[in-house]
Amino acid sequence: MTMLLEAFKSEGLAHISYMLGHQGEAAVIDPRRDIEAYLDLARQNGLRITHIFETHRNEDYVIGSVELARKTGATIHHGAAMDFAYGNAVSEGDTFKVGDLELRVLETPGHTPESISLVMADTSTAPEPLGVFTGDALFIGDVGRTDFYEPVDRWAEALYDSIHEKLLPLGDQTILYPAHGAGSVCGAHMAQREFSTIGYERRHNRMLQFDRDAFIRAKREESHDRPPYFLKMEEHNQQGNPRPLDDLAFPTPMAPGEVSEALEKGTQVVDIRSPEAFAGAFIPGSTAIPLNMLAPYAGFFLSYDADIILVAENVEQVSEALTTLRRIGYDRVTGHLRGGLTSWEVAGLPYDTIPAVHVDSLVDGVQNDSLRVLDVRKPGEVEGGMLPGAIHIPLAELMDRMDELPKNELLVAFCGSGMRAIIAASLLKGRGFGDVGNSLGSMAACRMRGCPIK
Amino acid sequence: MTMLLEAFKSEGLAHISYMLGHQGEAAVIDPRRDIEAYLDLARQNGLRITHIFETHRNEDYVIGSVELARKTGATIHHGAAMDFAYGNAVSEGDTFKVGDLELRVLETPGHTPESISLVMADTSTAPEPLGVFTGDALFIGDVGRTDFYEPVDRWAEALYDSIHEKLLPLGDQTILYPAHGAGSVCGAHMAQREFSTIGYERRHNRMLQFDRDAFIRAKREESHDRPPYFLKMEEHNQQGNPRPLDDLAFPTPMAPGEVSEALEKGTQVVDIRSPEAFAGAFIPGSTAIPLNMLAPYAGFFLSYDADIILVAENVEQVSEALTTLRRIGYDRVTGHLRGGLTSWEVAGLPYDTIPAVHVDSLVDGVQNDSLRVLDVRKPGEVEGGMLPGAIHIPLAELMDRMDELPKNELLVAFCGSGMRAIIAASLLKGRGFGDVGNSLGSMAACRMRGCPIK
Amino acid sequence: MTMLLEAFKSEGLAHISYMLGHQGEAAVIDPRRDIEAYLDLARQNGLRITHIFETHRNEDYVIGSVELARKTGATIHHGAAMDFAYGNAVSEGDTFKVGDLELRVLETPGHTPESISLVMADTSTAPEPLGVFTGDALFIGDVGRTDFYEPVDRWAEALYDSIHEKLLPLGDQTILYPAHGAGSVCGAHMAQREFSTIGYERRHNRMLQFDRDAFIRAKREESHDRPPYFLKMEEHNQQGNPRPLDDLAFPTPMAPGEVSEALEKGTQVVDIRSPEAFAGAFIPGSTAIPLNMLAPYAGFFLSYDADIILVAENVEQVSEALTTLRRIGYDRVTGHLRGGLTSWEVAGLPYDTIPAVHVDSLVDGVQNDSLRVLDVRKPGEVEGGMLPGAIHIPLAELMDRMDELPKNELLVAFCGSGMRAIIAASLLKGRGFGDVGNSLGSMAACRMRGCPIK
Amino acid sequence: MTMLLEAFKSEGLAHISYMLGHQGEAAVIDPRRDIEAYLDLARQNGLRITHIFETHRNEDYVIGSVELARKTGATIHHGAAMDFAYGNAVSEGDTFKVGDLELRVLETPGHTPESISLVMADTSTAPEPLGVFTGDALFIGDVGRTDFYEPVDRWAEALYDSIHEKLLPLGDQTILYPAHGAGSVCGAHMAQREFSTIGYERRHNRMLQFDRDAFIRAKREESHDRPPYFLKMEEHNQQGNPRPLDDLAFPTPMAPGEVSEALEKGTQVVDIRSPEAFAGAFIPGSTAIPLNMLAPYAGFFLSYDADIILVAENVEQVSEALTTLRRIGYDRVTGHLRGGLTSWEVAGLPYDTIPAVHVDSLVDGVQNDSLRVLDVRKPGEVEGGMLPGAIHIPLAELMDRMDELPKNELLVAFCGSGMRAIIAASLLKGRGFGDVGNSLGSMAACRMRGCPIK
Repeated sequence: MTMLLEAFKSEGLAHISYMLGHQGEAAVIDPRRDIEAYLDLARQNGLRITHIFETHRNEDYVIGSVELARKTGATIHHGAAMDFAYGNAVSEGDTFKVGDLELRVLETPGHTPESISLVMADTSTAPEPLGVFTGDALFIGDVGRTDFYEPVDRWAEALYDSIHEKLLPLGDQTILYPAHGAGSVCGAHMAQREFSTIGYERRHNRMLQFDRDAFIRAKREESHDRPPYFLKMEEHNQQGNPRPLDDLAFPTPMAPGEVSEALEKGTQVVDIRSPEAFAGAFIPGSTAIPLNMLAPYAGFFLSYDADIILVAENVEQVSEALTTLRRIGYDRVTGHLRGGLTSWEVAGLPYDTIPAVHVDSLVDGVQNDSLRVLDVRKPGEVEGGMLPGAIHIPLAELMDRMDELPKNELLVAFCGSGMRAIIAASLLKGRGFGDVGNSLGSMAACRMRGCPIK
Repeated sequence: MTMLLEAFKSEGLAHISYMLGHQGEAAVIDPRRDIEAYLDLARQNGLRITHIFETHRNEDYVIGSVELARKTGATIHHGAAMDFAYGNAVSEGDTFKVGDLELRVLETPGHTPESISLVMADTSTAPEPLGVFTGDALFIGDVGRTDFYEPVDRWAEALYDSIHEKLLPLGDQTILYPAHGAGSVCGAHMAQREFSTIGYERRHNRMLQFDRDAFIRAKREESHDRPPYFLKMEEHNQQGNPRPLDDLAFPTPMAPGEVSEALEKGTQVVDIRSPEAFAGAFIPGSTAIPLNMLAPYAGFFLSYDADIILVAENVEQVSEALTTLRRIGYDRVTGHLRGGLTSWEVAGLPYDTIPAVHVDSLVDGVQNDSLRVLDVRKPGEVEGGMLPGAIHIPLAELMDRMDELPKNELLVAFCGSGMRAIIAASLLKGRGFGDVGNSLGSMAACRMRGCPIK
Repeated sequence: MTMLLEAFKSEGLAHISYMLGHQGEAAVIDPRRDIEAYLDLARQNGLRITHIFETHRNEDYVIGSVELARKTGATIHHGAAMDFAYGNAVSEGDTFKVGDLELRVLETPGHTPESISLVMADTSTAPEPLGVFTGDALFIGDVGRTDFYEPVDRWAEALYDSIHEKLLPLGDQTILYPAHGAGSVCGAHMAQREFSTIGYERRHNRMLQFDRDAFIRAKREESHDRPPYFLKMEEHNQQGNPRPLDDLAFPTPMAPGEVSEALEKGTQVVDIRSPEAFAGAFIPGSTAIPLNMLAPYAGFFLSYDADIILVAENVEQVSEALTTLRRIGYDRVTGHLRGGLTSWEVAGLPYDTIPAVHVDSLVDGVQNDSLRVLDVRKPGEVEGGMLPGAIHIPLAELMDRMDELPKNELLVAFCGSGMRAIIAASLLKGRGFGDVGNSLGSMAACRMRGCPIK
Repeated sequence: MTMLLEAFKSEGLAHISYMLGHQGEAAVIDPRRDIEAYLDLARQNGLRITHIFETHRNEDYVIGSVELARKTGATIHHGAAMDFAYGNAVSEGDTFKVGDLELRVLETPGHTPESISLVMADTSTAPEPLGVFTGDALFIGDVGRTDFYEPVDRWAEALYDSIHEKLLPLGDQTILYPAHGAGSVCGAHMAQREFSTIGYERRHNRMLQFDRDAFIRAKREESHDRPPYFLKMEEHNQQGNPRPLDDLAFPTPMAPGEVSEALEKGTQVVDIRSPEAFAGAFIPGSTAIPLNMLAPYAGFFLSYDADIILVAENVEQVSEALTTLRRIGYDRVTGHLRGGLTSWEVAGLPYDTIPAVHVDSLVDGVQNDSLRVLDVRKPGEVEGGMLPGAIHIPLAELMDRMDELPKNELLVAFCGSGMRAIIAASLLKGRGFGDVGNSLGSMAACRMRGCPIK
């Protein structure tokens, strides 16, 4: 029987979990909260999931271990250097068999204290490593963050040693299976690629070219977002206490009047349509977080302690958003606007718009001082320059720093491509700024059109 | 074995086709062009499709008879009173068996000269009619159009007689299976419901309450759109010459630059996103036809003789639009903008916007004469009144009557809900009108807000 | 918005449930236990399920009302003449709205004391009935059983009156929506068809041609199976206490050795493969119930108080069997033989076979007295005659009457087509009968071959 | 945008094709005949398939290049050392770009003269090889066959050099993407695993441990099946002349009488049910090839020049078989027995059975000389010994050597597990052998039970 090795990519989070199977047994590494895909694959292949491994206490999504264990009887395993309210601790050298496949624990601290990697060997062929599941220790093109624990240097050192003393010695032939791919908030320079080997990374991963001191310096200078929702994830993943998804209902379709009432009572209304659609017409008081921005940005702007109502183009979008929001622990998505924004419009309820400002007009406006650019990119992104006169407040800090903004000017939100800008513009509108524009295209368009950059 | 009777609804066109099956045999009535659904259902039920019936020469979609016959070996049957380049003529009283089900031909002219209905009986139980497939003769809540052939009165008379002398006598117990449901361009007053019987219609169908003269008068006064594409459909459906769908490729994903070039060379760029998204930003020169408006309106504004490129939110929308456009004979949908409008924006290419005008602002504008309403509803719809000063040009006539419009005023497109208005607004923009708005909500919102209506 | 009316057929049980929807609301009539299909359809159509109706306390499957109510907040309604541990009692004339659709309660006792029918009207058109959900009162081609309550005559009378005084007066135009279709154990003479009207049934339903006395006589003479599992269903459906399906896991894939051990410890091993496959090789001690026979026969032979392990061709069969078994309350399907019977064979474990006996050989055998036919058809079926010398024990009674069978003869199980025969043959094998055959084709083949029938 | 690299496994053939995509472009390597999966994936990812590569002229399946090129406009590329009637020749060092991915041609003759490998690099990271598509040159755990061309030694030498001078020098870090996985007829010792690297194979692939002479000796001694259908595949794949799949219809459901007639007229009736089901009852004259044996064995026993009718458990099996048969060029699968074998049985038509013989009984039978074992395993498989008195004829040779078999003994077909044995048993039956048994479990069961092996 062919060995099964399947990667499950959670788009948006860019999280990758894995299932290994052989001879009727299976193991899952870092399961996400919606576990149906693992159960299905196991079912189709006649596999019994017997082991669940967590490479580390994840901070960016709710892990599905407890639920998966409940439905399969599998045992859960994580690193010994952290107290978990569930599962079993494993240590360097512990081995587990899945048919002829062997998983051997390597302690690879750095990203977290209890991070482990799992070395895979095909014992029917040789004891030599064939692959390694590195969690957030080693990515393709980057390494894990080391800014979660103090002192940063200590954990950067630990990571350097984990990589150089544990992972690289596995040999060039070892295939790399990390817990995140391109697009994750867990690393800034990952490759646009999800296949690599220890040998390839050893020579081409930028971070593996540094010596120990340079590596630590580089890690020290890194800057990462740390969205508030991470705290909730850490709690869930250490306590093992998220609610089973089976207990949660699909959001109720709500009439415009019901949404309007809920909004007044403090319910969060989140508009997941495209930036253009939001700009074209939106419900006053709603927050724009386009569907593909939910994974990285919902955790900055949405509260766990109030209901959420979605505004979407259709129910497929609602469904997709729901999956993403539940993966990061939002269990109170209770409704969606039935019939989408059209139903709101035909009900005669008030809507607002945000004019799109093309970069050519933006440059004109900057030059004749008729508008002010609000650049919400990250610190690292603005190093290459900003438009003249732009105010720079990273999106992550916008809610706390809004009083730095002028109230009597046309503010045009600006970012890398126009996606984060619409979020910013909607936040401004929600805080009472009247004259707000959005630069669809933003910096990317600037580069194509040759804007003046200071 | 249970008798199979399945309705296939083509959304948008509101066309309904049917498959009947019993004891290994099946018949299809009025198949649409994309025939996979019939083949699949037959396959799953172990049925061989042996007969295909066309209740009439359809004018609003490409019928799939020839292709379905080619793939199954089935024979095609239609009414004798028209010359077809394919298939076999059937006459009053002809009967066909599908297992124990019997289909008997009734000639029911009116909508077209060769219209037939098919009376279904379960011969294992009784010869009495159990159902009837009425094509476009009798709908639920309405009857077929009789404005396609001259003189109108003659065909209205024919239809009256078909209904009163052929269909109603089948008996109250007869279940009604028409070729169109609510939303079709083939009838204005259809019920919001797809289940009825001869008995129920006899007493509650508005058109069946008239005597012969009143019926003819009522038909004479009806006004229906007759989109130019009907001519193409009539040709296809009489000649049996549409291209097999297998020969057509999925639209190629195109880079923004390629779309820009094609647009300059005369390719039709059709934006199928929502009205809000189009209003928020669109490609100058593109025509807005929101996805759910393609079936009723593409045939007015798109040429069969030039390529079509779609602008959509995602590839699922492209796919859905493709199905609809092919059902009405558009075989030259050759491309779609890869990455959607975002890719256009980040390429720095120019885009335009159309401000949404809430009905409250619209009323203000009308009252202080700062804008002009362009009402594009149908003649019948404006009988209840229009906003003061509104110019009325039905959407179907807009392309031909644009010189009636003032060039130096803000024109706000207005319709029933804002959907047709965005089409109109995009057409105005395409013809060089610079100052164009769109009333999202339109008349529906007016009713809720209490606009002044004259 | 088009009114939604969707039938959900549960194959095997031939149970039909319905969802009605309009204007954002929906009602479900007689939901089955696996409710995902209702939730999905409601979701796709932006509907909130607000009402659940039970036409009667069902005895042949687990109703899903409680679970569906829990997930949607809907209220549950059933007839007043029985005590339920959940839901609300409704009475003659109570009406409920689902958008413009109206459901009006008719009390139609007979099948059960509290049976109700629901008359559907489209209030946007007329108050006249358009359809009626008759539960187990009136079927297409038959009427409901009246043998569950004593005295039988009283309930036959009640049913006659319900039909003639309540249902037929609704008018010929009324579409019929019963709770069971062809193949159900709830009626013997149902049509092979799932579409009819009151008018059609009034004239062609055999049971509606009788006068009151003849009707009662006919009902008195009817004979129906009453499988032991009905008691469990009745309890579940009156108490509302079945376990939520979310709590149940998919059966574990088990190695041959594990199945062998479990079998020895009293676990029920059920082989759902085809009769030919079982005949070709089977696990000694397993019971044959081919997949499509599970719905009608599992309830006779399987205990609720022991685990069940399935033997199937593949995991799709396991999955399908699981759905059926759970619909009739079997929650202890804990495992399936991984890799199917092949894995058992290659493990060298013992298997047995049951020779198929063609009817030609069967006739020879009967004539030269080398075998004995065991005819397991129902009493009504053998009225047309049996093979010479056949012993007649209906399948439902076989377990209790096995000591009537000779131990030292070749016993060939015989039924209508060979399906029930393989169940019988496996039961004989399980009770130690060594020399057992199975007549694939059975009576149907006899008819084609012209067997001597007495 | 993340680079796409997807493997498409064709089960049964164990053939693996690949799609690479980046920045709107895609390439496909060794497409199979049913190309919908490539088109779908490209569609979902907004990719335009621009290049198709054939690593070699395949002999075991119909390549889909021509059809895929027709539907996408892609160009086809294959090695220069063979004349093809279509596509373009490529040579050592030619490079192609797919976004930032580069494919570089390595000429790696051996399996065929024009075999090429494609070295993949991520040019956005480094020019160093990251992966290599090796076609049938290097597999995981084995190397390609070299017995198709004369002299064998010359091609074994070529293969050795291709591997040692071209592939191994790519570096240990290079991920291996071969054209076949475990279960293929193209290699006998492949690993049960589909992930490996050059480094891992360099040290653990048995065939890479030999020096040049030993390698050639080993290749010289290899023995492979060469089913007659290979000739047809070679023709198709060199000429590019297979029929487009769109032209082929799904097999017609046929009544038992129709199948019976067709059988008499020489149509091939192929029974794809499980060995147990075939043994339990089968149509005289039909050939057993269980569904999962179609890929390796249909090509030995089925003619391209007569129609094929399938006997299956259900239409899903028919559909799956159809896919497999079309992949190996069988375009004349025109029908299937509607309702499966049950319909045959109830029609009273004759059926036959093949008793299953457990290995315990087999050993008894051998010892008391009441039966004769026909061992149809391959020469290599019987090296470990056979049951006493067994006649050995490999399944591939059975049709030609049937006259070596005794006619008046009970012949029990025997193989590795019982799968090939049922094919053999059905062939014997078809040639008039009356007394035939089948050893379900066969050698595998023998090993578990400890049969005497000589």
